[in-house]
Amino acid sequence: MSSSTHAFAHPRAASPELEIEQYLHRHIPLTGAMGVRVKIATPGRVELTAPLAPNINQHETVFGGSASAVATLSAWTLVHIGLQHAGVDAATVIQRNAMSYEEPIHGDFSAVCTLIDDGAWQRFLKTLERRGRGRITMNAHLLFEGRQVASFEGDFVALKR
Amino acid sequence: MSSSTHAFAHPRAASPELEIEQYLHRHIPLTGAMGVRVKIATPGRVELTAPLAPNINQHETVFGGSASAVATLSAWTLVHIGLQHAGVDAATVIQRNAMSYEEPIHGDFSAVCTLIDDGAWQRFLKTLERRGRGRITMNAHLLFEGRQVASFEGDFVALKR
Repeated sequence: MSSSTHAFAHPRAASPELEIEQYLHRHIPLTGAMGVRVKIATPGRVELTAPLAPNINQHETVFGGSASAVATLSAWTLVHIGLQHAGVDAATVIQRNAMSYEEPIHGDFSAVCTLIDDGAWQRFLKTLERRGRGRITMNAHLLFEGRQVASFEGDFVALKR
Repeated sequence: MSSSTHAFAHPRAASPELEIEQYLHRHIPLTGAMGVRVKIATPGRVELTAPLAPNINQHETVFGGSASAVATLSAWTLVHIGLQHAGVDAATVIQRNAMSYEEPIHGDFSAVCTLIDDGAWQRFLKTLERRGRGRITMNAHLLFEGRQVASFEGDFVALKR
């Protein structure tokens, strides 16, 4: 297992959400600066939240860079958790992404990434197992007051350790 | 002129670079958290820098979300400065962007956006003047140790105030 598992091996059982939140804040300090919280962290769905204040821009809406970063994190986290769940020790990096900003975000927001194509996920795992390297496309979206306000698509590459 | 100009009307003449850096840090607090500095801010070229430490990830390279955010800022800043230079008071927002992460970034990095298509810029200004709204595609790239390590393309929409 990855070093993160050891880092949070603690007598008190932490929730998977708290574990991954602490992992993100420890290893990616900008997630702390953005106030990212992990609400749901399962192999099928990841939901992150972030407050407006540290992510605000000159229009008093969410800065596009924050919006894109939190969307990226939700997708990265889903791949990371899915690989852990499958017992695969791999490093996952982003290769490319596209982001569409559909509406201004006037307050606290969330990023949701769900595993919708299980066939693609199984092929990703098989390729990773066979070649030590796999690539998968993930989709996520941002929500503000229950509405979709941005959409994200990203390609992630995993390398077996 | 925009409110930013008034905010920095000060007896001591500040450089355009310092003015826009203060504007970014004041209005987009995440730029301070990322340690973004403005090295060049002219209507033809914007160059920003950011250190590794506040932007590091679990691989000890630059977090993709930071890379994308700094690239976005370089392009937004070029549009913002170009509009100021043209005497147009407009609010500029990002509509969509694509980012390609070509190499891991192992240290302090910079984002460079240059105005390469003056014809597109002139059409953007004309449309903005005529309709109160214009859209332009900007390209930027990230540099680490003199090499291009990521590329960015984004569409920005300006709305006359």
